Amino acid sequence: MSEACNSCSAAGSCSQDSCPSEPKLTDAQKASHIDKVIAVMSGKGGVGKSSVTGMIAVSLMRQGYKVGVLDADITGPSIPKIFGVSGKAGVSKTGILAPESRGGIKVMSLNLMIETEDDPVILRGPLITQIVTQFYTEVIWGDLDYLLIDLPPGTGDVPITVFQTLPIDGVVMVTSPQSLANMVVRKAIKMVRNYKPPIYGLVENMAYVQCSDCSHRIEVFGKPQGQEEAERMSIPFLGELPLDPELATLSDAGHIEDYQSPVFDQIAKRLAEEVRKHSGEKLA
Amino acid sequence: MSEACNSCSAAGSCSQDSCPSEPKLTDAQKASHIDKVIAVMSGKGGVGKSSVTGMIAVSLMRQGYKVGVLDADITGPSIPKIFGVSGKAGVSKTGILAPESRGGIKVMSLNLMIETEDDPVILRGPLITQIVTQFYTEVIWGDLDYLLIDLPPGTGDVPITVFQTLPIDGVVMVTSPQSLANMVVRKAIKMVRNYKPPIYGLVENMAYVQCSDCSHRIEVFGKPQGQEEAERMSIPFLGELPLDPELATLSDAGHIEDYQSPVFDQIAKRLAEEVRKHSGEKLA
Repeated sequence: MSEACNSCSAAGSCSQDSCPSEPKLTDAQKASHIDKVIAVMSGKGGVGKSSVTGMIAVSLMRQGYKVGVLDADITGPSIPKIFGVSGKAGVSKTGILAPESRGGIKVMSLNLMIETEDDPVILRGPLITQIVTQFYTEVIWGDLDYLLIDLPPGTGDVPITVFQTLPIDGVVMVTSPQSLANMVVRKAIKMVRNYKPPIYGLVENMAYVQCSDCSHRIEVFGKPQGQEEAERMSIPFLGELPLDPELATLSDAGHIEDYQSPVFDQIAKRLAEEVRKHSGEKLA
Repeated sequence: MSEACNSCSAAGSCSQDSCPSEPKLTDAQKASHIDKVIAVMSGKGGVGKSSVTGMIAVSLMRQGYKVGVLDADITGPSIPKIFGVSGKAGVSKTGILAPESRGGIKVMSLNLMIETEDDPVILRGPLITQIVTQFYTEVIWGDLDYLLIDLPPGTGDVPITVFQTLPIDGVVMVTSPQSLANMVVRKAIKMVRNYKPPIYGLVENMAYVQCSDCSHRIEVFGKPQGQEEAERMSIPFLGELPLDPELATLSDAGHIEDYQSPVFDQIAKRLAEEVRKHSGEKLA
């Protein structure tokens, strides 16, 4: 009996071993051994989800883990650019080769499969989700401790397919201080609760800007409310991050791996604790 | 003969009056008379597309025009909140009633059709695009000079359907200073060029933050490059906007109509000139 049987009206009379209407979890490409798959999500666009994904990857890599990043934002991909990975991904007999960043983070994105980085990908949902799934089933990720999936904004096709068919261990939610952003992020949190994975916690990005001249803290999107919001939604609060021009500049130059942020290291540490709690394993 | 015949291999032998494979433009609800339909797009999420849409609407309303805003961001809707419109939209025998903001701007969004504003809308592309189309064909917009369509991020289902089936007169593109954002916005510009509508121009949002303490101008996302980017893509540059905490606070409170911005008025004026150029009509 599968878990879906519990809520199925035909449970008594059905003789199938597994539910034919329940989506199956997909296997990774056969030469890949991936320990933890973490989705980074927001619901709201532009809260810095890709930067947070990138910095979590960097921080885990600095702790000695093998890390990959799957860019599931097919029509608005950011990951190759911030890691300075360009050119087209290679293909071997057994699968697609994931290029590596300077620091050794494996990266896959549709922008590594098109001729020109600013060519548009004008595709509807079924093709887009097929590409995301193939990035899991056909990319030779090799041995990874962590695969981070950078989800696109919204609660549509891509997150639905990812939560239904990929073996997600947990989710990191990213928000920014506006009530408007939090309203949309709450939609994403409620969506995740329709599926299985735990939410490891909430990161509040763009909480403030520090004036480069007088060090005044400017709350550009209003008063930070991440801690409050995390409590309201009963998920751990991982921390708040400033809007830092240096991160924007390094990301634009493809050098996110050079960014140093003690605040971020704290967030990554808290995240690692949450992952450990949920998996019952020791990470450190 | 339709325009599609020019590139069709069966043009010589086909006897159809109109192309059966070419999507048809949809008619608005029968009691609606809409003069200009403008899509506001970015490709990139979180560059403030909804704020820019909202402020264009406010500015046009202040100039005496009748304005409506169609929120096509079905899974991440912002429009009702920034205009302070809540509750459920009514339905009459002839269609869906569009609620009005305090200032008289008509608004339609999926958040006006669900019980709780932060309930997620977990739908795939075909249903999402059907909702967007219905917001055009079944909402009683009445007489409008302008209907603004706030598109979701990306170049997927919703923009495809909107450009294929709604009579879009032109597009406003929104970007922010990061090269990363501009790369994604170029994808959107190239997408629009696959369809018919002209691009009225580019707005660069979040260009800088003015320190509230020492008035220092902080370029949080790096040096603004909107003017340069517009020239590179051969579209008009409509202007740059700061990242202003006051706009965030007013938007969160549902009072975007109270926001005063001389910089924005300039942008709206330039937009109106572009619309006039393309339509050959006098707006003022």
